[in-house]
Amino acid sequence: MNEECVSIFVISDSAGETASKLASAAIAQYQDLNICLVRKTFINEKEDLMEALETARSSNSMIIHTMISTELVNIANQYCEEHQLFCMDILSPIVGEIEQRSHVKPNRMPGALHFLDKNYFKRIEAMEFAVTYDDGKDPNGFLEADIVLLGVSRTSKTPLSLFLANKNLKVANLPLIPQAHIPKQLWEIDAKKIVGLTNDPHVLNRIRQERMKAYGLNPDTAYSNIDKINEELKFAQDLYQKLGCIVINVADRSIEETSSMILHLLEIDEHSYYG
Amino acid sequence: MNEECVSIFVISDSAGETASKLASAAIAQYQDLNICLVRKTFINEKEDLMEALETARSSNSMIIHTMISTELVNIANQYCEEHQLFCMDILSPIVGEIEQRSHVKPNRMPGALHFLDKNYFKRIEAMEFAVTYDDGKDPNGFLEADIVLLGVSRTSKTPLSLFLANKNLKVANLPLIPQAHIPKQLWEIDAKKIVGLTNDPHVLNRIRQERMKAYGLNPDTAYSNIDKINEELKFAQDLYQKLGCIVINVADRSIEETSSMILHLLEIDEHSYYG
Repeated sequence: MNEECVSIFVISDSAGETASKLASAAIAQYQDLNICLVRKTFINEKEDLMEALETARSSNSMIIHTMISTELVNIANQYCEEHQLFCMDILSPIVGEIEQRSHVKPNRMPGALHFLDKNYFKRIEAMEFAVTYDDGKDPNGFLEADIVLLGVSRTSKTPLSLFLANKNLKVANLPLIPQAHIPKQLWEIDAKKIVGLTNDPHVLNRIRQERMKAYGLNPDTAYSNIDKINEELKFAQDLYQKLGCIVINVADRSIEETSSMILHLLEIDEHSYYG
Repeated sequence: MNEECVSIFVISDSAGETASKLASAAIAQYQDLNICLVRKTFINEKEDLMEALETARSSNSMIIHTMISTELVNIANQYCEEHQLFCMDILSPIVGEIEQRSHVKPNRMPGALHFLDKNYFKRIEAMEFAVTYDDGKDPNGFLEADIVLLGVSRTSKTPLSLFLANKNLKVANLPLIPQAHIPKQLWEIDAKKIVGLTNDPHVLNRIRQERMKAYGLNPDTAYSNIDKINEELKFAQDLYQKLGCIVINVADRSIEETSSMILHLLEIDEHSYYG
């Protein structure tokens, strides 16, 4: 086997989201390397597990597994030890340690994380909320929202709303356009749940030019004009000050990072949202 | 310290999403236990790391960390060994193994996963696409979509669309209502990118009754009537057959599980989407 071709097998009794995310985080450290990520998901039978392990072995793949059945975990760990395969069992040491500390038995339900419990339905509701109240569609959503995001065009309002919805939070957002009407509901809610998003004018200029190009239009329209952008940002800044809300500059920040800042600055309790 | 109160510290140089997800998967195995999950995120300085470690030690917390700096990783691992704290270093063994196999140095960029690369913008675009083309808002979206989801009310179309958008896939969805007009664009696209969602009539009946109750309405409306539901499902089934699309029953399936099935059944290449 070609030494330069690294392959990672994710083996999971559920959708394999956690292990895939971990593998992706490692792969992202090697941007010029071609690394294969193979997912073997919903593995709940011994036969399926053995087949996955044998396939992984035949390509000398690295293995990351998350399974809850002790029988399957033991089979995987033993197989990897016998055949000297790289193996990371990321879930069972944590489950075992909790058991030891609490003297409570785990329920050993595969994919219990995604079980159709109350928390799960809350998340679905939050997602539907984000879609319904995206882009200022209905300002009545502000009254019911946990978080209201404000910002000029291209300050990541929609992806931020969806990302936070995944943590069970109800998020509404409103695009800011100078001279446009500001819905009265914005003044009726607690400023502590409002976040004003801003961006660097030159970043906005570049992003908007690229967007125009993607549409096959002239990149130098009023939309991407730097004076216009400064005017928009000033309008937003003035509004944020009047509202007394927190302000976050999204330039060079990922959605994950901005979301973390929002939860921290709004002092949203760590335990009230879904991990 | 009370033995029954288990606490887990997630320490990350980024948003801590991967480690939090792993901790949540373990916590989900203990539904009746009160487990604290504390996130120490964007830890990039020695001083901040030491402070997080000392806080974790003072409450004898379990530690899961994901950091890319070898210096910080070594500090954390040594500290935990010295003070006999439970510690899982989930990222660096994988990064180290890839380095050993490929002879390529990792770029050691914290949160490289979320770096503002092409992939990242593709994901944001996919999220905006899902919101724009949710609920049959504009059937022209079908032409551009990677996946088109069809289904009667309460078959998880919106959360599924958003979940798949997170994997960089452009998803449009259309609610099916008997006698309503079916947009002509649906017949113009490849049936191989269409997924017909269905559900068990009794599950739909229960979900819809609960929804009516949540709205403060009589639960026994036409919306939740079992004959009406059967009629809707029959209409959907007939359409799926005419289209020749795959059909998935979402009853008792989580969004994650249904998404996995969709990717598998539509034969969407493992490598073409974001982990």
